[in-house]
Amino acid sequence: MKTITSRDNAQYKDLLKLAGSSQARRKSGRTLLDGVHLCQSYLQLRGMPEQCIVSESALQNPEVADIVGQLESQRAHVLGLPDALYNAVSQVEHGVGVMFLIETPERAVTEALSVSAVLLDNLQDPGNVGSILRSAAAAGITQVYCSAGTAFCWSPKVLRAAMGAHFVLDIFENVDLAALVSGAKVATLATSGYATQRLYDVDLRQPVAWLFGHEGQGVADDLLSMATHQVVIPHLGQIESLNVAACAAVCFFEQLRQGQS
Amino acid sequence: MKTITSRDNAQYKDLLKLAGSSQARRKSGRTLLDGVHLCQSYLQLRGMPEQCIVSESALQNPEVADIVGQLESQRAHVLGLPDALYNAVSQVEHGVGVMFLIETPERAVTEALSVSAVLLDNLQDPGNVGSILRSAAAAGITQVYCSAGTAFCWSPKVLRAAMGAHFVLDIFENVDLAALVSGAKVATLATSGYATQRLYDVDLRQPVAWLFGHEGQGVADDLLSMATHQVVIPHLGQIESLNVAACAAVCFFEQLRQGQS
Repeated sequence: MKTITSRDNAQYKDLLKLAGSSQARRKSGRTLLDGVHLCQSYLQLRGMPEQCIVSESALQNPEVADIVGQLESQRAHVLGLPDALYNAVSQVEHGVGVMFLIETPERAVTEALSVSAVLLDNLQDPGNVGSILRSAAAAGITQVYCSAGTAFCWSPKVLRAAMGAHFVLDIFENVDLAALVSGAKVATLATSGYATQRLYDVDLRQPVAWLFGHEGQGVADDLLSMATHQVVIPHLGQIESLNVAACAAVCFFEQLRQGQS
Repeated sequence: MKTITSRDNAQYKDLLKLAGSSQARRKSGRTLLDGVHLCQSYLQLRGMPEQCIVSESALQNPEVADIVGQLESQRAHVLGLPDALYNAVSQVEHGVGVMFLIETPERAVTEALSVSAVLLDNLQDPGNVGSILRSAAAAGITQVYCSAGTAFCWSPKVLRAAMGAHFVLDIFENVDLAALVSGAKVATLATSGYATQRLYDVDLRQPVAWLFGHEGQGVADDLLSMATHQVVIPHLGQIESLNVAACAAVCFFEQLRQGQS
């Protein structure tokens, strides 16, 4: 394990920049996974990180010690930091003191949609994006396509909310969703409060692509008009709209329910 | 419309304190609704606020002018603030410049559970609590009971995430959930990854109480053991757990689906 003790160390300064700037993360194609759960999930599902960073006091934690042990047995890079230096990098308050530096996978769309997928059009809130990734992964959906305006999936907030879902999904970003929808070999479904077809009345036992939009404005009109189905989740009572992540969960699990019944 | 221009005004200082401190909100039994949507919902569903606070520039906004007009026609209190003073009170970045000061309803539990309800045990995240209130209201559930450890429902973050759901719900806080569950006249359902009964196999056409717990630890064991049903939402793939608000949405809308089919 290598140790850095100076704030002026160039490698440490790079880490600080990566932790604090989404621009630095996009430019370098790297991000940080903060906390035991994300690191364990990555190890289990994706393998070795580029680097593991631990705080001095976290080495006392048995789960962290186990992670560091696994990495060192594979000769992966482990960097130790005094707590003060570590805490300046970590975005998690009262965290456990371990993070992975990983490359963010960049995928280009090369094929038409032919399996179940999630399409996110201009979704703003990182917590919503993370929750949708988590629900999709739990429902067995494996592909996620995001428009350029959607929150960056590999940001710390999205990673935290998705709880490891990233590592079982193929995530495509900066995607031309209109082109994707128009070439899709599966039905494309958008939810809309104005639709007349109930979610429950659509046959979801085939693969479908789910289209969700901006928290306030919904799916952009041009994209909405290209969807093969507009469906409504029936409601009761005076509040008509759902949070987009709640709406997505209802859709994904209705698909799973139909497939299993 | 009364106007305050000095930061030293006692009423203005009270507002600042209310905006910045959850303790001040709990102690005074008052909270702030920030933004056009929440204010419009309150007017429509609950009526006149104790006071309306507007920024100078927001008076140019037609929706805000309409709200102020409605209030003045009913001789309700409207307070105008220069933008700089208003912005120090508002927690919403780039907001529209209107808020209501309202009393937070305090309800004591006097009856046994006999209708569909949501019980929140030690739920921490205000965004999750707000999303659950919103989904419950959309699904036609009208009663919400929160343990002492659950995020304060009338905090600005919960209010923002619930988008007006508060005003159609009866919300009970600091509730002894164990006593409530043990005296319930309806089935009480908790979701658990270890349960063997599928959500879809439970008859939800009767009123039920839904029990959700802490984001990390779930429902406390003693409470879980008192629930009449433990149910699992079947999943596919390697990610097993759902965000608690996503889980709640799936449950509420499965109940609604069964009731309508």
